[in-house]
Amino acid sequence: MSKVYRTELTPLSFLERSAIVWPDKTAILYGDREIDYAEMAAHATRLGHALTASGIGEGDRVAYLCPNTPEMLIAHFAVPLVSAVLVAINTRLSADEIRTILDHSGATMLVGDTELLGTLSPIVSDLATVTEIVAIEEVGSDPGFATTPYADLLARGTDDPLPWRVDDEERTISINYTSGTTGQPKGVMYTHRGAYLNALGEIIHSRHTLDSVYLWTLPMFHCNGWCTTWGITAIGGTHVCLRQVDPAVIWSLIDTKGVTHLNAAPTVLIGLANDPAAHPFPQRLTITTAGAPPSPTIIETMEGLGANIVHVYGLTETYGPHTVCELQPGVGDMNVSERANFLSRQGVSYIIADPTRVVDDEMNDVPRDAETLGEVVMRGNNVMKGYFADPDTTHEAFRGGKFHSGDVAVWHPDSYIDLRDRSKDIVISGGENISTIEVERAIASHPAVLECAVVAVPHERWGERPKAFVVLKDGQDTTEADIIEHVRGQLAHFKAPDAVDIIGVLPKTSTGKIQKYVLREKEWAGYERRIN
Amino acid sequence: MSKVYRTELTPLSFLERSAIVWPDKTAILYGDREIDYAEMAAHATRLGHALTASGIGEGDRVAYLCPNTPEMLIAHFAVPLVSAVLVAINTRLSADEIRTILDHSGATMLVGDTELLGTLSPIVSDLATVTEIVAIEEVGSDPGFATTPYADLLARGTDDPLPWRVDDEERTISINYTSGTTGQPKGVMYTHRGAYLNALGEIIHSRHTLDSVYLWTLPMFHCNGWCTTWGITAIGGTHVCLRQVDPAVIWSLIDTKGVTHLNAAPTVLIGLANDPAAHPFPQRLTITTAGAPPSPTIIETMEGLGANIVHVYGLTETYGPHTVCELQPGVGDMNVSERANFLSRQGVSYIIADPTRVVDDEMNDVPRDAETLGEVVMRGNNVMKGYFADPDTTHEAFRGGKFHSGDVAVWHPDSYIDLRDRSKDIVISGGENISTIEVERAIASHPAVLECAVVAVPHERWGERPKAFVVLKDGQDTTEADIIEHVRGQLAHFKAPDAVDIIGVLPKTSTGKIQKYVLREKEWAGYERRIN
Repeated sequence: MSKVYRTELTPLSFLERSAIVWPDKTAILYGDREIDYAEMAAHATRLGHALTASGIGEGDRVAYLCPNTPEMLIAHFAVPLVSAVLVAINTRLSADEIRTILDHSGATMLVGDTELLGTLSPIVSDLATVTEIVAIEEVGSDPGFATTPYADLLARGTDDPLPWRVDDEERTISINYTSGTTGQPKGVMYTHRGAYLNALGEIIHSRHTLDSVYLWTLPMFHCNGWCTTWGITAIGGTHVCLRQVDPAVIWSLIDTKGVTHLNAAPTVLIGLANDPAAHPFPQRLTITTAGAPPSPTIIETMEGLGANIVHVYGLTETYGPHTVCELQPGVGDMNVSERANFLSRQGVSYIIADPTRVVDDEMNDVPRDAETLGEVVMRGNNVMKGYFADPDTTHEAFRGGKFHSGDVAVWHPDSYIDLRDRSKDIVISGGENISTIEVERAIASHPAVLECAVVAVPHERWGERPKAFVVLKDGQDTTEADIIEHVRGQLAHFKAPDAVDIIGVLPKTSTGKIQKYVLREKEWAGYERRIN
Repeated sequence: MSKVYRTELTPLSFLERSAIVWPDKTAILYGDREIDYAEMAAHATRLGHALTASGIGEGDRVAYLCPNTPEMLIAHFAVPLVSAVLVAINTRLSADEIRTILDHSGATMLVGDTELLGTLSPIVSDLATVTEIVAIEEVGSDPGFATTPYADLLARGTDDPLPWRVDDEERTISINYTSGTTGQPKGVMYTHRGAYLNALGEIIHSRHTLDSVYLWTLPMFHCNGWCTTWGITAIGGTHVCLRQVDPAVIWSLIDTKGVTHLNAAPTVLIGLANDPAAHPFPQRLTITTAGAPPSPTIIETMEGLGANIVHVYGLTETYGPHTVCELQPGVGDMNVSERANFLSRQGVSYIIADPTRVVDDEMNDVPRDAETLGEVVMRGNNVMKGYFADPDTTHEAFRGGKFHSGDVAVWHPDSYIDLRDRSKDIVISGGENISTIEVERAIASHPAVLECAVVAVPHERWGERPKAFVVLKDGQDTTEADIIEHVRGQLAHFKAPDAVDIIGVLPKTSTGKIQKYVLREKEWAGYERRIN
């Protein structure tokens, strides 16, 4: 018999509750569409039935390729409602990269927005497991290969209530692919329990209330929108969906929809601040930012316009945010540069997470001296269940009983962590991971290239961008533009280097290992950190 | 091997975190004492070790008889820190009642404040399991029978770190005794998991932040202070401890300590509003109230002074609050009587609780027509684990897979519950449960009494008070005052009836069952509800 005092934790219960408490309150605003909580729950229920009728069963993966539309949001409830697993794919990836994810996840259904589906033409005939492609037609049109219009999918469902419950809170609710260091995507598994707890954490740390009007500047395919898909629904706030991160549109929505909260990488804030429409926010706006430390300039600018900045840090493997730069008494009285300096630190663990540690190679805590470098490691309910179908990589990531972030930090005497470098070969550009190894592989496939190395270099707008150093084969010739074009033919365009230096020789150790740090040091002269 | 992605939920982690993040921030204010978070955690650690050194092991019960002092608060962490179980005893009970609880819980240690310990003189020689009595001397002095001064207990401890973890989140963290209908106290068991989740619920629903200054007007022995002992600690707020609920002292603390939040039964608010010191609050004050629906008058008065009212409802068996009268768009624009009418409803389940239901005798939902009466039932993570050492009563309370509150409500079309009556023989006076059966038993022991019945009658200050109807034996004579005095000799004084009507005959059914509702109806003429 089930225990009267125990219900398995699941964010499904949040939509159940909000549909009971605020059936007529606006759950989603999107252009002219207004969807209330009763309608949102009804849509999720109907879609859940439709998935079952389409052969989707317990644990099956359903892939989505959509911008931040109401349908993408509702899938966060409909798919787990039938104990299936949501795979929300990064819309900026190339067709080949998306194929890799579809095949690896074993998804049998792909639901895609017609603005994006067309890019898959080269690969759709060649998918290992997808048997049905559903097209949500709003911008663009069905590219011809989609088997099912979204309305037809929904028509397979019914309105019979489904229980907003899960039989085991450690069941996988979603898989979020992250490129990792090698470029081979890794499928990060979230549990219902972890998603539930992180959603409550987002409410508490971004101070959401019933009055929250949350603008979807953060892609939902990033860590399920840092679990805010579930959190805003829990608190009964309003989701303002957004197809594209366009500063002019964002300003217009802030002005006309009463936006109170948004999450975004600093690069989005820079775009906002520098838009011609920039002006003081008509209401208090809380901006939760991650992906790079916010600069004093952007903090000053945003605070000047009437924003509160909350700085958080985490990885796909930690449900998005894992630490927050908690305020201390007196921070409000600091001048802006002192405050920016304070806020630029990644901080301390979320209320729902175990303490974050900075450790040496033997997994011992480094001294809290603000100087000694160590790796940031995490464990507990805010750490992924593991990488899907990849026990070796999971085992490696969890070595010593902790999740290894690959981020290098110092530990301040007050216990706040402060990222300084990255042991992983990753460039984080505008909040997106780019594997340097993957870019190197693409460059090396150019017939004129002998060898190459890619490093992150600081960039005012994007935080970091990849830069390549290339040695050509004897007698070969090519140009920077040609190499960039070559990479763009293979990878998502944002992964192509901004600059390519063709040089005579790469710096190497005596054993022949390329010394990337030598290349990096020159590029980062004048910067305190080696991440941005 | 333990899972990297799972940590057992426990509120212990909240003190661990706050001591890391805000070591120097004031955790507790109490008179001239200021205790920061590092000191609070150190005190809990030392006390934990001291308990172990005193023979307290896993699952052992440690009883506390204390007002809302720092020591009572710290026990909420120190006792579970060594996997023991906290039994915080209602300080208003009589010596005999306290003996019953001590014996039933099997506590081996009693920690008591010397202001209260003295009342136990008649029973200390006669306790079944308590082998050590620790005296916290601040007001009054050691009555002579205490075996250990608190400082001596602490001296047995060390400062070695203890893990802020529990091996099983369903382990019992505390037992809270409630008098129930028969007067036989029932020990309500809370789990670490439930306490953790309810604490997050209190943060979210009372909108606590790092800046919360929380005044302890609610006794910690009531549901561990509705889990706010753990919640305020989690958010890094400041606990303002309070020995006695004295309106003048409360006003002074609100004025001088920047109090932002307090929890209290409406009766405490009435006391505050009618104190000569009453004046507009110097800062926004959030008052979370339960125990009786707040009246329009008190809502208007408190809002006029600058308070936000949050109305919650629950029972000891639901970790304190289980429902909240969630606001709806437009409530802010209502006039005060409309708003008071809205806010007087008990509302909807907490974000961390399963939906609350109102059911008929066959456990079917009653219509949501605001008219049909039914019993309020609950289940899920916010329901107790069961009654300690009382499987029969637990089984009865959990019949049909739900916890039976014994409270009778209507269900509004908007799904808010609205209490109307009580099927249990309980009077709730100033937030305290009084069993009518227990009072009847005390009255019946008077030599002149033939039979009697006790019912709740409405009371402006206390919400409800017990009133007795008594039939005397032939030829016997006694007075109202004599009967009241007789009861006060046996039970806690607040349980004695305010009024005793000596009458010729009690109304009965044809089978001889006393018709309490007949007695009640007359007393409640003009009231919409039969609870207050």
